Amino acid sequence: MSDKGRLIVLSGPSGAGKSTVVFKAVEDRKDVCFSISVTTRKPRPNEVDGREYFFVEPDRFKEMVANDELLEHAEYVANSYGTPRAYVEKQLEAGMNVLLDIEIQGARQIHEKMPDAVKIFIVPPSMEELKRRLEGRGTDTSRAIEARLIRARQEYAEADFYDYIIVNDDADRAAQELSAIITAERCRASNRIQWLKNL
Amino acid sequence: MSDKGRLIVLSGPSGAGKSTVVFKAVEDRKDVCFSISVTTRKPRPNEVDGREYFFVEPDRFKEMVANDELLEHAEYVANSYGTPRAYVEKQLEAGMNVLLDIEIQGARQIHEKMPDAVKIFIVPPSMEELKRRLEGRGTDTSRAIEARLIRARQEYAEADFYDYIIVNDDADRAAQELSAIITAERCRASNRIQWLKNL
Repeated sequence: MSDKGRLIVLSGPSGAGKSTVVFKAVEDRKDVCFSISVTTRKPRPNEVDGREYFFVEPDRFKEMVANDELLEHAEYVANSYGTPRAYVEKQLEAGMNVLLDIEIQGARQIHEKMPDAVKIFIVPPSMEELKRRLEGRGTDTSRAIEARLIRARQEYAEADFYDYIIVNDDADRAAQELSAIITAERCRASNRIQWLKNL
Repeated sequence: MSDKGRLIVLSGPSGAGKSTVVFKAVEDRKDVCFSISVTTRKPRPNEVDGREYFFVEPDRFKEMVANDELLEHAEYVANSYGTPRAYVEKQLEAGMNVLLDIEIQGARQIHEKMPDAVKIFIVPPSMEELKRRLEGRGTDTSRAIEARLIRARQEYAEADFYDYIIVNDDADRAAQELSAIITAERCRASNRIQWLKNL
């Protein structure tokens, strides 16, 4: 039996500690890769096409949108970014779970195009702790932090869109939970029923 | 945050190796207990009421059925057996995951009364391997084995009733998957959303 991989969509407020949790969760797994975005932004000196991003011209990007070649797309600072369906599907077919860190609007777009994507929301254990972590980074003004906290509350109001909620009060435990979710989702009956019926 | 526990219903053909997988999966977990059945059967010398079973008189059993105090019930060899709702709910409220090994008819009854129970189907890797394991036990006649194989095929046809399928080709890996499912199911958004909304 060889399972198909699962698309794992991760969201959560800035300051939730997503990256740490994700890297701890996947460091010992060979069945997980990260999605690679398409972008119209120019490559930086050390960036390699197909590694950090797939770099495309704006016309090609528009064509990808028109042809439904992107699972989601958005604009940031005059550049376009998107998730290429073909790349993701190739990885899933090969049995790789594909991780994608994206905010809720992107997660909703993906859910429309791939309803069986697994949607996970990672949150810090309290608003006080979120504030402390944002202040601790020392990169935001107190006004920017205030805006992030308001944004977090708005995101929490939509959290029932997600399949799972991970509370990052301890990064090791949170990473264990993320890894368990990936393992469990491969065992979904929908992912294995065809194999069973062929026995 | 303290999660509620989840009711985990396990089924699978005789010879799938369920017990081995279950004991490996729970040996290091403190958040899992087994359901204790109510029965009208008389206690055996070493059995303790409330440990192996809750022993009741037939009239009390009938009353429990009438009062909807059982999540499922069935007759075997002139005795009645059932799963007591109150005991299960007390454990779930206390944060314990409750495991219940039961055939598909019982699983369907439980699903009716507790739709959010997690339903897992454990199978051997092939029909040939199932046959080998049944023969290896040396407890069944070849006719009884034939009957078990036919029964297994009938159960497989209903396997899409389950949420998860675990293939027991390697008991350690299967146990890891079972444990991952238990961990993942505690992270379900439905189990944590109220906590999040109260932040």
